[in-house]
Amino acid sequence: MSRTVYLNGAYLPEEEATVSIFDRGFVMGDAVYEVTSILGGKILEFEGHMNRLARSLSELEMTCDLSREQWIEIHRELIARNNIDEGLVYLQVSRGNAGDRDFHYPPAGTPPTVVLYTQAKTNLANDPKAKIGIKVISLPDLRWHRRDIKTVQLLYPSMAKMAAEAQGKNDAWFVEDGFVTEGSSNNTYIVKGNKIITRHLSHDILHGITRVSLLKYAAEAQMEIEERPYTIAEAQAADEAFFTSASAFVMPVVEVDGATIGSGKPGPVAARLREIYLEESLKAAI
Amino acid sequence: MSRTVYLNGAYLPEEEATVSIFDRGFVMGDAVYEVTSILGGKILEFEGHMNRLARSLSELEMTCDLSREQWIEIHRELIARNNIDEGLVYLQVSRGNAGDRDFHYPPAGTPPTVVLYTQAKTNLANDPKAKIGIKVISLPDLRWHRRDIKTVQLLYPSMAKMAAEAQGKNDAWFVEDGFVTEGSSNNTYIVKGNKIITRHLSHDILHGITRVSLLKYAAEAQMEIEERPYTIAEAQAADEAFFTSASAFVMPVVEVDGATIGSGKPGPVAARLREIYLEESLKAAI
Repeated sequence: MSRTVYLNGAYLPEEEATVSIFDRGFVMGDAVYEVTSILGGKILEFEGHMNRLARSLSELEMTCDLSREQWIEIHRELIARNNIDEGLVYLQVSRGNAGDRDFHYPPAGTPPTVVLYTQAKTNLANDPKAKIGIKVISLPDLRWHRRDIKTVQLLYPSMAKMAAEAQGKNDAWFVEDGFVTEGSSNNTYIVKGNKIITRHLSHDILHGITRVSLLKYAAEAQMEIEERPYTIAEAQAADEAFFTSASAFVMPVVEVDGATIGSGKPGPVAARLREIYLEESLKAAI
Repeated sequence: MSRTVYLNGAYLPEEEATVSIFDRGFVMGDAVYEVTSILGGKILEFEGHMNRLARSLSELEMTCDLSREQWIEIHRELIARNNIDEGLVYLQVSRGNAGDRDFHYPPAGTPPTVVLYTQAKTNLANDPKAKIGIKVISLPDLRWHRRDIKTVQLLYPSMAKMAAEAQGKNDAWFVEDGFVTEGSSNNTYIVKGNKIITRHLSHDILHGITRVSLLKYAAEAQMEIEERPYTIAEAQAADEAFFTSASAFVMPVVEVDGATIGSGKPGPVAARLREIYLEESLKAAI
């Protein structure tokens, strides 16, 4: 059965949802996005995603006049119409269609293009990969240098995931100037003793919504947190490694560039944090 | 009057030319493009653009089964239908529509999305800016690191042009590790004595089609060419500066970051090269 999607105020069958060939998202990569997880029909981390969306738009001098209430309503309508118990809601806002291609921004008042759709998933919460951990390769970080703005310029992350798969691995960690920035679509962490080490926020990495919550829960659980860059060698010598993202929550990493991390099985810290994260974010889901 | 555009085998009124909201070009910036100039109804540098398109596709493991003859036919059909004497043909190939959003490439056999359209222009050849020169600012080069692949991930170049305009200037030159890489959508050059200095080819810059021809014509005119990086300070102290692109050909630059270049007027080398370039590329136009 065809999904119902949202496009610029209308609910449409997905096959009918199209944008102009002049849309800035199509010709310039000029669009931002968010992905939220749905568990038990409820939206996780809604406020966090809305705040980041507002920041991405603001950094790019884009405007979108939908209110917080309207965003919630669209999310809920899509979840209801598509009968989503577990899955994702994808949201994209582009700078709209100026009627032709031009490097210049469209005239003020050009409406943005707003698209939302659901993706039904099974086993988001009970992902079997969380039980065995994933394996990653490292790749040079060739992305643009405003990774804190969540744009759709995702070709390199996409290439990186394909490269990892071609080597029989699950994902890639990016390295710049000798240090890990983040994963291809996630924030990364290593654990040494009782200490969780993760790169500090800057323009170099995405400011993960899951990351904020995770660090809060970790602090509440008396874990020590150190925000600083680390190398692949340091990750390989760590007790544990994991990543966070809005759709994978907390995911153990058991191999980096062929080297086994710790015992080669998901460690207790990642397992415990995944448990806490799911529990707490479900409690706060709307 | 509405343009006729080409989309996946069909000639359509521009208002009807739309792509899926799941198109890889819209959700991932996963598309490449070319822009060719049309003068007197003829296509300039067609072979060069086709060769670069093939290279961009190949570097991204994308396929598009249109033959050289079919590409020519589409270009000519659009030029004829839209009655283009002077203007541009824009061509974009995305990795197509997999029916949903996924970082993974769509299954093999998923057809690419192919879009072409014309843009009528006046004064491409007789651009009044070529008589007075343009002014540029420098900005850090924040683009991704495969600038040799001509992808639609153009948000930063677009931001840079807007930033230049906000300062009352025409364009931006990008700087990385202390050296000029290139302009926001063009290759850059400085002239010192009889020597033309331009950055060497690498993944750091676009391999300009106009650049190749220009260097050939310059060599034929007994000018000395040095391919190496240079700084903004060196540009400011040069006798002349200019840029090349498929749509602006050879364009004098008379100010960089507020400093006047040479006399502040277009110099003889840029003027002569623009003349030669237009003459020679028109001769070879098809």
